[in-house]
Amino acid sequence: DGRDEEEEPECENVLCGFQTSSVLSDSAREKLLFVHGKIADQEAVVVLEKTPIREDALPELFARSTLRLEMRNDIYSTYRLQVPPHLNEIKTTVVCPATQKHLKKYQRQESFLVEETEQDYESITLPYIQQQSFSLQWVYNILEKKAEADRIVYEDPDPELGFVLLPDLKWDQKQVDDLYLIAVAHQRGIKSLRDVTSEHLPLLQNILQKGKEAILQRYELPGSGLRVYVHYQPSYYHLHVHFTKLGYEAPGCGVERAHLLSDVVQNLRADPRFYKTRTLSFPLRADDGLLGRFREAGRL
Amino acid sequence: DGRDEEEEPECENVLCGFQTSSVLSDSAREKLLFVHGKIADQEAVVVLEKTPIREDALPELFARSTLRLEMRNDIYSTYRLQVPPHLNEIKTTVVCPATQKHLKKYQRQESFLVEETEQDYESITLPYIQQQSFSLQWVYNILEKKAEADRIVYEDPDPELGFVLLPDLKWDQKQVDDLYLIAVAHQRGIKSLRDVTSEHLPLLQNILQKGKEAILQRYELPGSGLRVYVHYQPSYYHLHVHFTKLGYEAPGCGVERAHLLSDVVQNLRADPRFYKTRTLSFPLRADDGLLGRFREAGRL
Repeated sequence: DGRDEEEEPECENVLCGFQTSSVLSDSAREKLLFVHGKIADQEAVVVLEKTPIREDALPELFARSTLRLEMRNDIYSTYRLQVPPHLNEIKTTVVCPATQKHLKKYQRQESFLVEETEQDYESITLPYIQQQSFSLQWVYNILEKKAEADRIVYEDPDPELGFVLLPDLKWDQKQVDDLYLIAVAHQRGIKSLRDVTSEHLPLLQNILQKGKEAILQRYELPGSGLRVYVHYQPSYYHLHVHFTKLGYEAPGCGVERAHLLSDVVQNLRADPRFYKTRTLSFPLRADDGLLGRFREAGRL
Repeated sequence: DGRDEEEEPECENVLCGFQTSSVLSDSAREKLLFVHGKIADQEAVVVLEKTPIREDALPELFARSTLRLEMRNDIYSTYRLQVPPHLNEIKTTVVCPATQKHLKKYQRQESFLVEETEQDYESITLPYIQQQSFSLQWVYNILEKKAEADRIVYEDPDPELGFVLLPDLKWDQKQVDDLYLIAVAHQRGIKSLRDVTSEHLPLLQNILQKGKEAILQRYELPGSGLRVYVHYQPSYYHLHVHFTKLGYEAPGCGVERAHLLSDVVQNLRADPRFYKTRTLSFPLRADDGLLGRFREAGRL
């Protein structure tokens, strides 16, 4: 009933004695914070997340809160609203005792935007990719139906122009609201956007057109409801295209990493070697080996 | 000082008498709610958004809050945390009086991707923009220091190349994690990316460079930590540039609407009329008048 809750915090509260060591990560957008610290000499991770604003709480929220003006301009004004605690809880998850694995899982990494010139690609990025020799076996398994064959939504089997379309692992396929599919090209050897030239236009246009058609057929979502793009850098170096629902802010759809396939096609028509010669910007996490190479080369 | 704030909500509180008509949209992920209603017989939109959790508030938050156990399982437990109001504010924006346009703007809607050719711009988009004659008075108020002058972070007063840099209204400026600033050009008459040609390169480069420098100086965040971009379509037709923190998934940073300023510069160097002649993709909401025009023209 919340009668006396403002007066005395109940101190079987395990967080009263919480000693913060560090903030592992946070999301200002999601109002979320992961903290590492100690509870009675044991390692702990505390996850704090503000709760969604509930429509049914609005009348009490408006009536019982304090409003402080910050700014007024014409018809716009902004305030800070101070709300009774029971209307504005923070969801709190405690992991205790926490292991090193928990800490790593929640540890944030800063990102840095790299501006990769044609020369940077040749002297830094390409050698790095080649040395790493990331395994693509799991991709070939999909293309050869040795794995995930039952998940395939559509296939064009043509070895030059064809592709396999299947749901991204992040999508639970329960609702179209967060639709996320991947088209994996049958053609091998196209590592990334950097390798794409006008000779690949038929392949790219085929993926764009038939991918949209397959999604319309299967999910009743027309092409105008889709965001179709490639990543640079990609997370694996075999040509693949992302199809996500337009209204859904899919992870990785930001302008710093995504390139609309329709723009790629348009750019290659205007300049066959557009992506060979272009300076391309992309983000790298602090612990990414490639970022280290750019640093060593004095390019950051 | 927050001493007596729990006792009597100050009822010059314009929201005390707020009559909710409907929730226009919400985001459980972002803890955000758009409400339509009335303030003293005037139509109003109220935007409520919980604030990010601040590291510097943690000690007081842990010490002074009430913890209620919800679930315990092995090393995991979940709680509801009830927090002193001054540590857990809700950012509140009031638009009053609000017009039908405001209501539409905040109403949740399906989106459709439009592919606007050069001809579409001339025959559909430009006439539509001109007919609407959106008011830019609030922008001119900023440029002329008639409003928000105290919010200005940096200014280059040059009438051709200069700009005003200030925090976006969505950013509460409490933490750099969700940094969001807008540079508004002093030069008038550049409606959008479509109007930008190579003659604007000095202006664009000036905004890019001095905007980054000002943010480094004020917030200690280097350019490599920033995503700098313009929107097409913009939400108002006066040239402005968005600066957001790279790791922060700012609303509107998706590839379908955002254009990295460094790419804009690069494209204009390669082709002075790049954005005049280009087919540009952008999303429009179902109720957008411009979408209706594209539909009537058989372009969707």
